[in-house]
Amino acid sequence: MVPAGGAGTRLWPLSRAGAPKFLLDLTGSGRTLLQQTCDRLAPLVGDRVLVVTGARHAQAVGEQTGFGVDRLLIEPSPRDSMAAIGWAAAVLEREDPHALIASFAADHIITDDEAFVACVREAAEVADTGLIVTLGIEPSGPSTAFGYIRAGEPLSGFASARTVQAFVEKPDAETAATYVASGEFRWNAGMFVARASVLLDELAREHPALAAGLRAIAADPASLPQAWEGLTKIAIDHAVAEPAAARGQVAVVPGRFGWDDIGDFASLAGVLGEAPLQVLGAAENLTALDTSGLVRVGDRQVCVVGLENIVVVDTGDALLVTSLDQAQRVKDVVAALKASGRDELT
Amino acid sequence: MVPAGGAGTRLWPLSRAGAPKFLLDLTGSGRTLLQQTCDRLAPLVGDRVLVVTGARHAQAVGEQTGFGVDRLLIEPSPRDSMAAIGWAAAVLEREDPHALIASFAADHIITDDEAFVACVREAAEVADTGLIVTLGIEPSGPSTAFGYIRAGEPLSGFASARTVQAFVEKPDAETAATYVASGEFRWNAGMFVARASVLLDELAREHPALAAGLRAIAADPASLPQAWEGLTKIAIDHAVAEPAAARGQVAVVPGRFGWDDIGDFASLAGVLGEAPLQVLGAAENLTALDTSGLVRVGDRQVCVVGLENIVVVDTGDALLVTSLDQAQRVKDVVAALKASGRDELT
Repeated sequence: MVPAGGAGTRLWPLSRAGAPKFLLDLTGSGRTLLQQTCDRLAPLVGDRVLVVTGARHAQAVGEQTGFGVDRLLIEPSPRDSMAAIGWAAAVLEREDPHALIASFAADHIITDDEAFVACVREAAEVADTGLIVTLGIEPSGPSTAFGYIRAGEPLSGFASARTVQAFVEKPDAETAATYVASGEFRWNAGMFVARASVLLDELAREHPALAAGLRAIAADPASLPQAWEGLTKIAIDHAVAEPAAARGQVAVVPGRFGWDDIGDFASLAGVLGEAPLQVLGAAENLTALDTSGLVRVGDRQVCVVGLENIVVVDTGDALLVTSLDQAQRVKDVVAALKASGRDELT
Repeated sequence: MVPAGGAGTRLWPLSRAGAPKFLLDLTGSGRTLLQQTCDRLAPLVGDRVLVVTGARHAQAVGEQTGFGVDRLLIEPSPRDSMAAIGWAAAVLEREDPHALIASFAADHIITDDEAFVACVREAAEVADTGLIVTLGIEPSGPSTAFGYIRAGEPLSGFASARTVQAFVEKPDAETAATYVASGEFRWNAGMFVARASVLLDELAREHPALAAGLRAIAADPASLPQAWEGLTKIAIDHAVAEPAAARGQVAVVPGRFGWDDIGDFASLAGVLGEAPLQVLGAAENLTALDTSGLVRVGDRQVCVVGLENIVVVDTGDALLVTSLDQAQRVKDVVAALKASGRDELT
């Protein structure tokens, strides 16, 4: 299942509320992030994919994926990741009580699909033993943008799976450096594999009403509009992963497959390549002299002179200029636009 | 007389070949630089102003000034400042052999008009004695963007006029600092006052064919199209000011009247005010967080985050992003656009 939500405000003005990150071809590959996610899962599950998305984007998701309404779960409103994933789990559980469910966000990027598939296959084998399994990304550096997974002992009988000691929040830079130096920590990319029934039973231990509510919606889809609004808003990490890890019920399969969540323009620039200057859009309309960073060119001529690590994003109705260092602050721009009544631009 | 020429390529994309600097209201004052120049001269000469400009801009100059064709001298092609100023001098000389001519570029800015008028009045008194007089700007710092005038002894009988020892080229930073520290140097703003006949006679010493050619055009305006193309291309500094200074025939009246040639966006930002961030255009369309420098906003929303001394100039068909430090290099952008066949944007 693919949760397709989140606006990606740090990628404004490319991503907007009406055109969120997952619906965009951010890397110029010819496929949107949602399409790339489905493409990547096809070798593993064929067309057995459910996309959970909001009503506003359901039509675009259907058009981009070619999926019929039987493979789209349309949320009446956003209720965080546990409701989205748990709903899909409840639907699958009714079809097959032994079904495995795996969750992969619609707006991440992975460059080594083969390594990803191998990692998921091992995770599925581990999940078949009744554990909840997460994919832990081998850190390429001491990032402060991600939560971390602390690995424990190797699981016997598997190539690389280990128990999970704990999930930890996004660290400060010093802590992140000690995490990475220890070799015991992986990035938490929010990828989970488990039996649908195991996931829901674990949820029922801590949040019985939420688990029951999701199972009731799956049993009676007509109840969705009313039942949905009563569901607890909580992230899957807090609802299931952390409590289950504390009881030794979570494993991690470490992976290195070029994952990135494209959280901001610095992340996007890194994904695009090694060259100091990365260009998106109509490169023929760009004149860049002694410039590094990321420039997205639209219909107009863009000229950039003598700037290091600059970010210029030109679109038809809005222009962003910042630096790779300040890329996280783009969300503040979106907040400022909303505060000044320019919602039509966000 | 007002020479109205020069594209101002370092102010691209505001200034273009078809809309040069002097035709623009660069400071948001409501008057173009050409109009401000004529406004400033009115207390001195009323409507006795001649504008010398190129054929391409003659109509716009006429519209902006309200001047009839009797006050516009239209150059068939650019032949540098000596031909432009000398032509006006030759026209005036025919009307009145004792006439004084003063030359002030159409694309400079002056903030203290009263001080300017007082300075020009003293220059006119000195010029009446038969000297060529230049206005020397009191340096506000060791600029490397201007040539300098080295002053000599005070001229007796005048409030502040001094002889000119020499005109010197744009210096390097170290030399500029010694110039300014000495107190003997003024910026050369290209402002001259002289009897028309003195100017042409001085020209005739070094460049007799050019002086004769200009006088012949004034005597027979119908000969202009053919005669013009044979004139020597040379700047007034080299043709007249430097040789005359070497023979002790040039005086300088020092002045401090908020002069700037608005040579580039750093210069423009300084003219606009002291605030760290200067905004031109539709300020209501700008969201700037922790940003200093100069931003020109057009029709679209512009957002700038966390950048010091940035320059962002947004227009309908072209966008420039650079820094105040690199402002001189904007001319390289224009050259690059021409080289890549994008002349329509320059």
